Amino acid sequence: MEYLNKRLIRVASCTEPADLVIRGGQLLDVYSGTLGPGDLAIADGRIAASGDVTGCVGPATETLDAEGSVLAPGLIDAHLHAEVPKITLTNLANAVVARGTTSIMTPLDQLGVVVGVEGMRWVLDEARRTPLEVFHSGPSRLPYTTPASTVGRTFGPAEHRICQQWPEAVGIWEYMADSVLDFDEAVYEVAEMTVANRLGLHGHAPVTTGRALTACAAAGMRDDHESYSAEEVREKLSKGIKGILRRGTHTDNLPEGVRAILELGLPARHFCLCTDDLDCQDIVDLGLVDYLVRYAIELGLDPVTALQMATLNAAELYRVDHLVGSLAPGRIANVLLIDDLPRLDIRAVVAKGRLVAREGELVSPTRSPAYPDSFRNTMRLERPITADDLALAVESGARQADVLCLHVDLEEGLLSRRRDAVLTVNNGRIEPDPSQDVLYITVTDRYTGKGLTGRGFISGFGLKEGAIATSLSPDDNNIICVGASLADMAVAINHLVALEGGQVAVRDGNVVADMPLPLCGFMADVSAEAMSAMEKRLNEAAYGLGTRLKRPFFFLIFLSITAIPEYAVTDRGVVAHASRTVINPIRGCR
Amino acid sequence: MEYLNKRLIRVASCTEPADLVIRGGQLLDVYSGTLGPGDLAIADGRIAASGDVTGCVGPATETLDAEGSVLAPGLIDAHLHAEVPKITLTNLANAVVARGTTSIMTPLDQLGVVVGVEGMRWVLDEARRTPLEVFHSGPSRLPYTTPASTVGRTFGPAEHRICQQWPEAVGIWEYMADSVLDFDEAVYEVAEMTVANRLGLHGHAPVTTGRALTACAAAGMRDDHESYSAEEVREKLSKGIKGILRRGTHTDNLPEGVRAILELGLPARHFCLCTDDLDCQDIVDLGLVDYLVRYAIELGLDPVTALQMATLNAAELYRVDHLVGSLAPGRIANVLLIDDLPRLDIRAVVAKGRLVAREGELVSPTRSPAYPDSFRNTMRLERPITADDLALAVESGARQADVLCLHVDLEEGLLSRRRDAVLTVNNGRIEPDPSQDVLYITVTDRYTGKGLTGRGFISGFGLKEGAIATSLSPDDNNIICVGASLADMAVAINHLVALEGGQVAVRDGNVVADMPLPLCGFMADVSAEAMSAMEKRLNEAAYGLGTRLKRPFFFLIFLSITAIPEYAVTDRGVVAHASRTVINPIRGCR
Repeated sequence: MEYLNKRLIRVASCTEPADLVIRGGQLLDVYSGTLGPGDLAIADGRIAASGDVTGCVGPATETLDAEGSVLAPGLIDAHLHAEVPKITLTNLANAVVARGTTSIMTPLDQLGVVVGVEGMRWVLDEARRTPLEVFHSGPSRLPYTTPASTVGRTFGPAEHRICQQWPEAVGIWEYMADSVLDFDEAVYEVAEMTVANRLGLHGHAPVTTGRALTACAAAGMRDDHESYSAEEVREKLSKGIKGILRRGTHTDNLPEGVRAILELGLPARHFCLCTDDLDCQDIVDLGLVDYLVRYAIELGLDPVTALQMATLNAAELYRVDHLVGSLAPGRIANVLLIDDLPRLDIRAVVAKGRLVAREGELVSPTRSPAYPDSFRNTMRLERPITADDLALAVESGARQADVLCLHVDLEEGLLSRRRDAVLTVNNGRIEPDPSQDVLYITVTDRYTGKGLTGRGFISGFGLKEGAIATSLSPDDNNIICVGASLADMAVAINHLVALEGGQVAVRDGNVVADMPLPLCGFMADVSAEAMSAMEKRLNEAAYGLGTRLKRPFFFLIFLSITAIPEYAVTDRGVVAHASRTVINPIRGCR
Repeated sequence: MEYLNKRLIRVASCTEPADLVIRGGQLLDVYSGTLGPGDLAIADGRIAASGDVTGCVGPATETLDAEGSVLAPGLIDAHLHAEVPKITLTNLANAVVARGTTSIMTPLDQLGVVVGVEGMRWVLDEARRTPLEVFHSGPSRLPYTTPASTVGRTFGPAEHRICQQWPEAVGIWEYMADSVLDFDEAVYEVAEMTVANRLGLHGHAPVTTGRALTACAAAGMRDDHESYSAEEVREKLSKGIKGILRRGTHTDNLPEGVRAILELGLPARHFCLCTDDLDCQDIVDLGLVDYLVRYAIELGLDPVTALQMATLNAAELYRVDHLVGSLAPGRIANVLLIDDLPRLDIRAVVAKGRLVAREGELVSPTRSPAYPDSFRNTMRLERPITADDLALAVESGARQADVLCLHVDLEEGLLSRRRDAVLTVNNGRIEPDPSQDVLYITVTDRYTGKGLTGRGFISGFGLKEGAIATSLSPDDNNIICVGASLADMAVAINHLVALEGGQVAVRDGNVVADMPLPLCGFMADVSAEAMSAMEKRLNEAAYGLGTRLKRPFFFLIFLSITAIPEYAVTDRGVVAHASRTVINPIRGCR
């Protein structure tokens, strides 16, 4: 886009007619935080004028009647991994724009590890043909994992030299506390380049406090979306690290974030909202940022404040307030017509200057383009995995093994804790024990063909039998499998390879439910509604295997993230967050 | 500066000792707007840690006792033409840092028209050796005047391609409403480049409202420092144009700006403070941003809010909040020790990590460097100017002429209005008439040697006899002269050329007082105190010629600015702001 648009300026000056005027509504001025009567004139997809736009109307100007509605800027998701809903960006845009989210900030980091910087660029070009405005914050490094797990493509200074020149660039993402504290040379080089390119260092510092947090601030971390308590939010802000308050499918930090504002008295200007990671069930059943705004209002925030957080504050944080985040002239014309402000009842959505949705329904959904060959056939395994490949072994005479399990708990979001357990050994093979809720977890490299597999134990998952597996798995998108049966785990993994990616539930050697994700091994070209239905089917299959987790597959996908305390599993093995090293989950045998 | 500094991060992590700790004070957290006990640790000129810094102290760490003081971030002047005080940047830094202003935003536009982009770069390098942090916003174009007046060097897209790559770059400046409305091709090209380079379009839109203002917003104008009323401030903000509230030597818009916050209820987060243009008398007698903060508090603003405007808000507006504007780790260590917050009694100043001033006195003033030859001998005139060169003539038989005067009035700041007058004609020459306060104003090109002179009449100046002249004269820095006697005007102009630039008062053919400004014709290497004394002497000489203006020389210098309504004079002649054309000040004769 050319930013300086003479036609827009002529329309603003009332010397040329607008394409569209929106009349009769109450305008939300997010700068002053006030509501008052005001119309909007739109030309070339941007806002030309606000207030009295009578002078911008010509014979060909279309009119949208906003009588009885509040006009608000389109909402911004300030931190969203756009691939995690497992649908193409076009389908994601169709789903979220209709509900009022017109801009997202995203790193496209899942794409990065499979199809690299060219694949990211391809999807950003795809995004331009949708009503969604996609801003890109290149991943601080790929893989994010420490020690580095196996991925198809890495991402470092060379890739940043490319992507930081893109017009969609707004900084780097997941600038991790660990990278700062470990003096990661490549990440430091990328951060220095980012500042020189006048972009932001968007952070990732879960449960980081004290000296470690001070070090992150000293290294220029601009914001964080990982605070689990209001006090953590406050400490971060005191060090100049702004809060992106999160509520995703498995991480609900919004009540604490709102408490930081309402009880601890932090100024709302420093906060914005994000979903981070969601499944399509959430998008379809609740919404995206529209839901966060409603939820924040329920939690006690004034509706105007909540909307400022979801618009202007996010735009200013990412330094794109000249493009989005308000209804001021010059901005991209993303406008919500809202009936009943506190309930955020979105009657219509104008995006990039066109009426794209009414009553939550798209006027004309965009269709996904044909994806390049590089997005297909990305799962490589030279020979099928066997149960023996997955089993952890001890000396053949042993009867019992002492093991360290990752213990996960929905209440703690994505944090995992240590649990110690004693397992039975048969012919040197340590057996899973569903009766004490200790299962196997494996992560199998799907890039090199070698099928290098990291193996450990997990508790809290609750499967009584069978196995479930996924090849969508931030951060490296290898195949994560959790199972009560090593044989079923092998079936699950091999099935995903055959599907060219996906998710699967297996019992007694048979596939109970599956979902093909043939694009990069983690996306399908289906609507959010269709994906939501598939997710429900998969999760129900997992319930049938005994788990009581609400969204077992959504939990499963995050078990490889080494940047979240305290344990993770990658194809390298079990990783302890504190030491950032691979540890042996077998503590002894007897 | 390398932004990522490993030593800083080690100090933040308490694994290496700090250079300096400031202990025992109350820390002003401009993010939360709160005060609380807290120390600071400083390393390599930057803030390493805040709060409890015990772990950062080693045997070589110095300690500054802040018992009883508030620690606040150094103040930021959000819009200052740094050459207008007529002293070198080093002397300016000495003067203002001691009083608490540690950062300025400046275009160095006076330098631009004389020594071009290389001269600007030279002075930015000079600034690095001072305690003052100087951010650069390249002038939207030079000359700013429309129609273009004569200057030594122009500034356009080619120069922006250079200066926008500098680390000091924060955008373009004086992005003028006129340029937007006139579709100025070169300015549009510069603006497009600026946005592509992720810098800001910092505006100039005096008394601009309605459609014209909407056009400015549509063209991306980010802020403005030229609002004369609270309502103007409000309208601008409603269009996304933030307010830089100004109080300079001749323009005091701060009461209206504060009224916009206190009475109209606009959120203070969108406002910061600037002086724009001052003489050294003001700096010495009052201060720089320290005075603005005190004044804003007197006008009713809460001290913390006033300080936030002078720190964080300015840093965020210019997108340099990772460098300045707070005491968060990572920022440049610019720290004020303030006793008695509402009175802003600054006990000590730490700048770039070093204690530079105590009780308003510099610990060790920096000395100006030797300036390059290009800064000297910049006044060119092939032959002396004569009274005949300056006189406006009509047909020889005429007895009277109807003329249009610029009428200036201190109450209106830099705005001028039209006044019509009737003057006597002698031998075809229109005579000035001090008895009705109608004087000559001339502007003489000092670059080409040709001495092209624009001529007009001025009212409101009040000289009864003699003439005063200046070769500091934003925007083009030609020689402005106002006089009750054409002969004295010629003496004044010729004297300034002989001085290689300066200011002068002449009576009856004799120089009554003068001030040499041999660097670029508008700067001298003297302290602010010495310059203030010279200014007083010059102004007193002008009082002796009959003017009742408080700072006649400071008024004089601005009469060439064509971007301020309603009239200006350049070497091209009298310019009407409304039409941006040269007009004939002689309306008729009889």
